[in-house]
Amino acid sequence: MGGDFGPRSIVQASLACLSATPSLHLTLVGQPSLLEELIHGQSAADRARLTIVAASEVITMDEKPAQALRGKPDSSMRVALERVRDGKAQACVSAGNTGALMALSRFVLKTLPGIDRPAMVAAIPTQKGFCQLLDLGANVDCTAEHLLQFAVMGSVAAQTLGIHRPRVALLNIGTEDIKGNQQVKLAATLLQAARGINYIGFIEGDGLYRGEADVVVCDGFVGNILLKSSEGLATMIAARIEALFKKNFASRVVGALALPLMKRLQADLAPARHNGASFLGLQGIVVKSHGSAGVQGFQSAIQRALIEIQENLPGRLHGRLEDLLS
Amino acid sequence: MGGDFGPRSIVQASLACLSATPSLHLTLVGQPSLLEELIHGQSAADRARLTIVAASEVITMDEKPAQALRGKPDSSMRVALERVRDGKAQACVSAGNTGALMALSRFVLKTLPGIDRPAMVAAIPTQKGFCQLLDLGANVDCTAEHLLQFAVMGSVAAQTLGIHRPRVALLNIGTEDIKGNQQVKLAATLLQAARGINYIGFIEGDGLYRGEADVVVCDGFVGNILLKSSEGLATMIAARIEALFKKNFASRVVGALALPLMKRLQADLAPARHNGASFLGLQGIVVKSHGSAGVQGFQSAIQRALIEIQENLPGRLHGRLEDLLS
Repeated sequence: MGGDFGPRSIVQASLACLSATPSLHLTLVGQPSLLEELIHGQSAADRARLTIVAASEVITMDEKPAQALRGKPDSSMRVALERVRDGKAQACVSAGNTGALMALSRFVLKTLPGIDRPAMVAAIPTQKGFCQLLDLGANVDCTAEHLLQFAVMGSVAAQTLGIHRPRVALLNIGTEDIKGNQQVKLAATLLQAARGINYIGFIEGDGLYRGEADVVVCDGFVGNILLKSSEGLATMIAARIEALFKKNFASRVVGALALPLMKRLQADLAPARHNGASFLGLQGIVVKSHGSAGVQGFQSAIQRALIEIQENLPGRLHGRLEDLLS
Repeated sequence: MGGDFGPRSIVQASLACLSATPSLHLTLVGQPSLLEELIHGQSAADRARLTIVAASEVITMDEKPAQALRGKPDSSMRVALERVRDGKAQACVSAGNTGALMALSRFVLKTLPGIDRPAMVAAIPTQKGFCQLLDLGANVDCTAEHLLQFAVMGSVAAQTLGIHRPRVALLNIGTEDIKGNQQVKLAATLLQAARGINYIGFIEGDGLYRGEADVVVCDGFVGNILLKSSEGLATMIAARIEALFKKNFASRVVGALALPLMKRLQADLAPARHNGASFLGLQGIVVKSHGSAGVQGFQSAIQRALIEIQENLPGRLHGRLEDLLS
């Protein structure tokens, strides 16, 4: 029921995913009459693998996490998470209120042993491919131990995406040992001592985009600001390019030719809007789609959940944590 | 003597500025024989307004601030700052080691009354013009009081650049009151109570690039990472655009037509590389040019110093601080 556009694009994305993946079963959680109506309007050859589960309440985009947690026992978000907890679903995908989703996920699913706080991770495009950036805003104040836990989780997540020995770096304002705040310096010491993590040291903001690491670790304040400012900058560049190409006839011609290229670039550059962000460290799979994601964005989020199910991400994470933090 | 390219481009930039500004007098501080040689190779109609002052030592780009402070009493950086302190120069412009320049500036020039720590500010391009972002890395851990001081300094700096009633915002991971870490929340309370500051509330990373504020305040860790990741992203986008345009004949034609537009865009998008960053809160004017700035970058830095002299930035800041913090 969440997201800036409500359930319409979610239903469309669900039907598209069902067509693309014959083994997929989806459950839509929300107000049945509304969902039925939306499905009715769509061509739905794969209706048989689509179930509707009723939930009478909806958490709004500006609701406070505490309110969502206490005030709405029958919200679509909570009911969906409870199905994961009860083994009726293998993953929960939502485009709703991020803070509420995180609070409810922790409450309903609980964290894995050894994890204090779940983190939010997304793939950021780089000059060489992608890097997994975490935390993206779930944890505002972090200790060095939290950063270590994020590094472990990010490393395992990157492995499930096919990267053999992920290069893990700590985001900092310089690459020398003396640079940074206390948490970052202490986290570096912890990571150097951690077994089985390919820790490559500090990385700066430009190094991230040069593709120098597969996993970049920071606290949620910094990660969120990096992500949102990158989205803002990419949007600004796209707008400027469009404006430049509208100036005169010659540049309009150039612009028309370049437009499809630009659109693809722009999509690549708003990562969290186009791919899902995963919650890591929970006893279950939760993928957050951007609130303003369209049909394609929500499809990517379902896709990411599918990979995490196939790769058994929480199980692998649990094993890795036992190994490392014992 | 600093910067990634050494004094060559600094000398060139100096001669270009002398030609452009007939009232300007410049002093080059460094190894006289080397500087004489570099000037000798250049057309220099305005030599009369160029003085060389000897300094026997050079602070390297990777030297630690403490080392620069204690170990090199006759460094070009220190001698230049001492000339500002002694009234022999009205501003110091350097492309050298940032940490060393900050430490030496504090030691030689001292901070203004009411300022604990100087901050580093630069103009960042936005969809609507520019915004002044501070701190950019001089202060890694900041209290709410420091953020308040940055807001005051940024506001006055924006005024000297011609903005009548600068909109001042605090960088945060959301715009609601409950968002953010303790320092940011407390700083918001302080700013709401501060007289004479046009405080508009929290701003997110994307709001910054949308041009929603004239001054954006954050701690140096966050500011530095925002700045460097923006530079990295802009470079990546430029590289991708170039690659797209090289794919086939049609796109090569498009690329050739679009190239000048792209170059200008790219320059706009590496702000600190192309404009100078000012140190605010000192009893004197210090402008830092990016280490890898070319001739044009260093010219912009000299230009920024000229504006700050004309507008008497430290004097205005001093008056404003007395007014506000008394």
